[in-house]
Amino acid sequence: MAIQDHYPDDFAHCYGCGRLNAHGLHVQTEWTGAEGLARFHPRPEHMAIPGFVYGGLLASLVDCHAIGTAAAAAMQAAGRRPGSDPAPRFVTAALDVRFLKPTPMGPVLVLRAVAVEVTERKVIVEVSLLADDVETVHGRVVAAPIPASMIRGLAVG
Amino acid sequence: MAIQDHYPDDFAHCYGCGRLNAHGLHVQTEWTGAEGLARFHPRPEHMAIPGFVYGGLLASLVDCHAIGTAAAAAMQAAGRRPGSDPAPRFVTAALDVRFLKPTPMGPVLVLRAVAVEVTERKVIVEVSLLADDVETVHGRVVAAPIPASMIRGLAVG
Repeated sequence: MAIQDHYPDDFAHCYGCGRLNAHGLHVQTEWTGAEGLARFHPRPEHMAIPGFVYGGLLASLVDCHAIGTAAAAAMQAAGRRPGSDPAPRFVTAALDVRFLKPTPMGPVLVLRAVAVEVTERKVIVEVSLLADDVETVHGRVVAAPIPASMIRGLAVG
Repeated sequence: MAIQDHYPDDFAHCYGCGRLNAHGLHVQTEWTGAEGLARFHPRPEHMAIPGFVYGGLLASLVDCHAIGTAAAAAMQAAGRRPGSDPAPRFVTAALDVRFLKPTPMGPVLVLRAVAVEVTERKVIVEVSLLADDVETVHGRVVAAPIPASMIRGLAVG
């Protein structure tokens, strides 16, 4: 089970990672105990120019995978078991993406993410995205606990 | 006509802004002479949590609009008329996005972009994304001319 499978239903509609979004990307983050791991196979339409993956899609993968990793790392820091219900829901405060080289269309992409700072106010996550074992994209995400203004009226929080 | 309508056909398949990508977002950048302007109405599935727009989509809008603005600014700097064929194709070297406040689902989003640095090696673009006249997202993009390694075999360059 992925971290995203443990988000409460009202937090599970995200276009990037929501299990309840029929049109979405369904990013899934596994927690190894030390890092988050995800795999994603871009669809043919996810191209930038022929042969290469679209940067906005890559930024989306970095985003949702970092947020899932932040949830797992925060649970572990609080003495809870990542992969149990409910996973805390973070939102993205900052998303910085470096496109180190073009990402080829074809291989299943692998994302590895490490939480380098975990406090109650934020989690900072570094993400490496690899194609054929080569890092083509590096991301840094500042994740914040979801603000109360975003959950008014939802059956969570 | 948008800047993206002047990309050569082989550069017009981008998921974010390609006129030839049937499944894409079709971001379109108008050039006012001083800045790039775009409008985008998120679809219902483009949500983060109910009521708010997905950050990965917002990053995608910032990305493609900045790249279109970079093309226009580079043409203008070279004494060419933005909105004439062919528009030069830039790629994203760095994409930094700050989510200043949650972006509400509902309004048509407006993006304004200014090229703050234009050289032969790169164009730096600052982007403001507004919902109901409030800036909810700020982006900074480093755009680079498309590298030769990405256009091998294409009928361009």
